[in-house]
Amino acid sequence: MAAYIIAMYNQPNDANAFDEHYTKTHIPLAQKMPGLRSLEISSGGVHAPDGSQPYYVIAKLEFDSMHTLQESLNSPEGQATANDLPNFASGGVSLIMFETNAY
Amino acid sequence: MAAYIIAMYNQPNDANAFDEHYTKTHIPLAQKMPGLRSLEISSGGVHAPDGSQPYYVIAKLEFDSMHTLQESLNSPEGQATANDLPNFASGGVSLIMFETNAY
Repeated sequence: MAAYIIAMYNQPNDANAFDEHYTKTHIPLAQKMPGLRSLEISSGGVHAPDGSQPYYVIAKLEFDSMHTLQESLNSPEGQATANDLPNFASGGVSLIMFETNAY
Repeated sequence: MAAYIIAMYNQPNDANAFDEHYTKTHIPLAQKMPGLRSLEISSGGVHAPDGSQPYYVIAKLEFDSMHTLQESLNSPEGQATANDLPNFASGGVSLIMFETNAY
């Protein structure tokens, strides 16, 4: 079992500003979230089968369970990370959260 | 480094028919894809921060790299898996593919 937050960032208005804030501020905030088992970020684009690039960047945060994930989101560190999103995600961001079973 | 296919299934017209085909036919097809490092499927719903459920189910397929992922998609087993989607994904499905770095 695992649980994930997938953050799907749309193309920002200013990619350079996004990149700088994301690297220097947002990733360090996310890394402080309690219970975070791994943080992975897309590199080289996000591709759809039709050749389009539906998102600018995708982040994948892994936790032990949905319970741990929710506790982390509600923690001061989780709230600081969420509250930072409007500071750089100028194209918008979609967050989805789910628990999984392995097959 | 890792690479992922994330399959995001919208609410199907007939959830029972979806579930039966997904479990009995589609998952076994996906499990045959060459280079598949892990297959995880959401359980207990897919949640957005506003409390909505934006997708019916999400599958996460992990590969070593985007190169391995693309080879797998282009293999007979990958094509069989992709060609099976219209047989049950009656609400539509969004596929995204990306390579990641760990932070």
